[in-house]
Amino acid sequence: MAKLISRKEDYNKWYNELVQKADLAENSGVRGCMVIKPYGFAIWEKMKDELDRKFKETGHTNAYFPIFIPKSLFEAEEKNAEGFAKECAVVTHYRLKNDPGNPQKLIVDPEARLEEELVVRPTSEAIIWNTYKSWIQSYRDLPVLVNQWANVVRWEMRTRFFLRTSEFLWQEGHTAHETREEALEESKKMLEVYADFVENFMAIPVIRGIKSPSERFAGAEETFCIEALMQDGKALQAGTSHFLGQNFSKAFEVKFLNREGKLDHAWGTSWGTSTRLMGALIMTHSDDRGLVLPPSLAPIQVVVVPIFKGEDQREEIEKMGRKIAERLEKKGISAKFDTDKHNKPGWKFAEYELKGIPVRITLGAKEIENKVVEVARRDTLSKEIIPMDTVDAYITTLLDTIQKNIYKKALNYRNARITEVNTYEEFKRVLEEKGGFISAHWDGTEKEEEQIKNETKATIRCIPLEVKSETGISLISKTPSDKRVLFAKAY
Amino acid sequence: MAKLISRKEDYNKWYNELVQKADLAENSGVRGCMVIKPYGFAIWEKMKDELDRKFKETGHTNAYFPIFIPKSLFEAEEKNAEGFAKECAVVTHYRLKNDPGNPQKLIVDPEARLEEELVVRPTSEAIIWNTYKSWIQSYRDLPVLVNQWANVVRWEMRTRFFLRTSEFLWQEGHTAHETREEALEESKKMLEVYADFVENFMAIPVIRGIKSPSERFAGAEETFCIEALMQDGKALQAGTSHFLGQNFSKAFEVKFLNREGKLDHAWGTSWGTSTRLMGALIMTHSDDRGLVLPPSLAPIQVVVVPIFKGEDQREEIEKMGRKIAERLEKKGISAKFDTDKHNKPGWKFAEYELKGIPVRITLGAKEIENKVVEVARRDTLSKEIIPMDTVDAYITTLLDTIQKNIYKKALNYRNARITEVNTYEEFKRVLEEKGGFISAHWDGTEKEEEQIKNETKATIRCIPLEVKSETGISLISKTPSDKRVLFAKAY
Repeated sequence: MAKLISRKEDYNKWYNELVQKADLAENSGVRGCMVIKPYGFAIWEKMKDELDRKFKETGHTNAYFPIFIPKSLFEAEEKNAEGFAKECAVVTHYRLKNDPGNPQKLIVDPEARLEEELVVRPTSEAIIWNTYKSWIQSYRDLPVLVNQWANVVRWEMRTRFFLRTSEFLWQEGHTAHETREEALEESKKMLEVYADFVENFMAIPVIRGIKSPSERFAGAEETFCIEALMQDGKALQAGTSHFLGQNFSKAFEVKFLNREGKLDHAWGTSWGTSTRLMGALIMTHSDDRGLVLPPSLAPIQVVVVPIFKGEDQREEIEKMGRKIAERLEKKGISAKFDTDKHNKPGWKFAEYELKGIPVRITLGAKEIENKVVEVARRDTLSKEIIPMDTVDAYITTLLDTIQKNIYKKALNYRNARITEVNTYEEFKRVLEEKGGFISAHWDGTEKEEEQIKNETKATIRCIPLEVKSETGISLISKTPSDKRVLFAKAY
Repeated sequence: MAKLISRKEDYNKWYNELVQKADLAENSGVRGCMVIKPYGFAIWEKMKDELDRKFKETGHTNAYFPIFIPKSLFEAEEKNAEGFAKECAVVTHYRLKNDPGNPQKLIVDPEARLEEELVVRPTSEAIIWNTYKSWIQSYRDLPVLVNQWANVVRWEMRTRFFLRTSEFLWQEGHTAHETREEALEESKKMLEVYADFVENFMAIPVIRGIKSPSERFAGAEETFCIEALMQDGKALQAGTSHFLGQNFSKAFEVKFLNREGKLDHAWGTSWGTSTRLMGALIMTHSDDRGLVLPPSLAPIQVVVVPIFKGEDQREEIEKMGRKIAERLEKKGISAKFDTDKHNKPGWKFAEYELKGIPVRITLGAKEIENKVVEVARRDTLSKEIIPMDTVDAYITTLLDTIQKNIYKKALNYRNARITEVNTYEEFKRVLEEKGGFISAHWDGTEKEEEQIKNETKATIRCIPLEVKSETGISLISKTPSDKRVLFAKAY
């Protein structure tokens, strides 16, 4: 197992190597699509289970809608259609046939052309609101609180593991409400569900905010987002929650009899997180030795490695090692006893570090004699000698400590990289030299936003929800502004 | 809520009405694709969770592979390609653009034609074995035990809720092994996992068997299956497990260094169950009043309905009803307290029967006075009066009794509909008058099988695994045969 390139040397290469060497994902035979390998998928499953639990706790149920959207439905909400038309996979035929010129080969059967083309869903508002039309007749049918776990396709020319792939996995919540206020509240509530999950479960600090109009979801009236900061100083959008107003209910004629007995259009929200969060996870915590996983997401939280010289030591050490792993499992800790007879301890240590296992317990003849074990932390790389009979209590506390420490480390890193600037010169210098979030005044126009983007590649990540009112002048047009927004280069 | 048509009157119509009225699924705006509604999806989630647990218990891990298969990969295993080519959705373009003649409309952008067409996966052997090529180098990399939960697409001209839809949800296990024996053992083991799940969790008795060559999975050497019997006397294949031999490892050049240091092709299996199981569930247990759900699959196992005349009774009855629901929840029973103020008890009872809730508890002023509740069973439609303070213990036992009773009822029904026949005349008469499985001698040829199918629409469902050796002569060619096989009309 060759070492990873360092983050300093080449951050992008480090990321790509890490994803592949840690067995998270690999490229597939299909351009732009990846294979999520068992270890990577086990982490995603943990994320999925926790998010799903939170959705259900907040009153949502899952359902499933077709992957295909007929072109005529796709067109119905204009802005949404325009936003996704340029990157969608289109099914035009429903049959292959043998190539008459080469019987081993197949060709598209020209006689099996669809009357209407089908778009592979890039997002499901269109098909779902078309369905809601028959679900919603009266205020008594509201709210509709539905979520879907699904694959979606957005054709990408330049792809990157987890962050940007043509097909990705996600969840998309789609809700319908009686009033504007209720829908707005729902979209804010789900933003908070995301923020809570990403901060406390993934140990990634986020800034809650609102997107500028140009960065809004196509078809939304307002897009709320959570933004995280990666170790290379670039931002990453970790989840979005959209207030759709009545855009989709009008496009799909979803009307209901309200409490006053009048017909009204339902108010909508949609909100999503995706396998992109895997990218955020990897880039927030990992180091040059490999992954660093917060215990709450680690498929294996503790690995117990026996170390013996010769067969005569083996039996006792293995017996004790297995016993420790069992004791941990009884405490609800996911522990693996290493049975690999093939590789040397040094190789194994490096491998478990690469995979981000939060805690490694080692025991050999000396430890058995002294009734202790060696406990190594992946996050700090520190080691301690712990009495064997207290190991399960110690590890229980330690996993909690690690979870908090990883978060705190990321928080300190992020907080040190929010820089207030007051001039465009300063903006460009900070962006170049330090990166991170830049807090600056903006005149509220797309023109200024666009110019900054073109000249620096930085975009407005969000207008933070908890922004303080402050008088200032904007970077380029020098127009008065009453609050700062956050800029950054972003994934 | 209008009543369902009866099964006797029109079984197909009964099924379609039931699926829609019980809120399991509905048709979508896409031909051949359905929407799985929240109630239906909640049942599917329970099935999924239990199957997933069983897969993990038997050493499998989940992963995710692309939904698209490039045509050239799809072609590689010839039989597999031939088997699915006629019914696959093909992506040919990756962009839409505004229609120059009608700017509100979108058309496929002819300039965004893919160099190579992509098939939407009808099954994933091709893309997965193409991936395994790089995973498998040595016997130490084996076995590979991977499962995927995914959507697949097989273009269907005539569709039916859950049983036959163009898109459906399923799981597909794909394993690779060192030896023929090990792969064969795996495919049998997974058949047993399916049989155990379907019988004990879904309460549907199945017959374990082997498919005749003509009914085999395209690309398999042997297909094992479990076959269930529906209430109209038609069979339904509830799961299949395929021994693939070296067909895919040869097509995709998956070679490994074996224990003797020689290069060998890996041995494969694949196995799948799908949302089709929802159809089996509905058609096995339900009656003219609606769904009958086994408790292990019911999203709500017990509903508590308070009945009061006037507001003065309401408070006490509701308080007691909620308390009962809470006591049940504490026992791990999923209980719903009915808070609907809008509908009459009679309507509610019919609605909960339609939805298949296994147990209904009713309590009113009289019950409160006598410290009892009325307990109604969905499966037998019987009612009992139970002392209030023993209700949680009583219900715990009752749910178990219901689970077993539903299975037993289905088993008796099925067993009464396996008929041994010795002549083709008898075969046709039984098929016409009684239906069910017909146990008969077959000469082992595709010719006889085909003739029977063409003349009667019955197919060989399986050669049962536990078949006794018995000398006889086949139905049409009158050739000696040493065992009976099972025929039936099938979904």
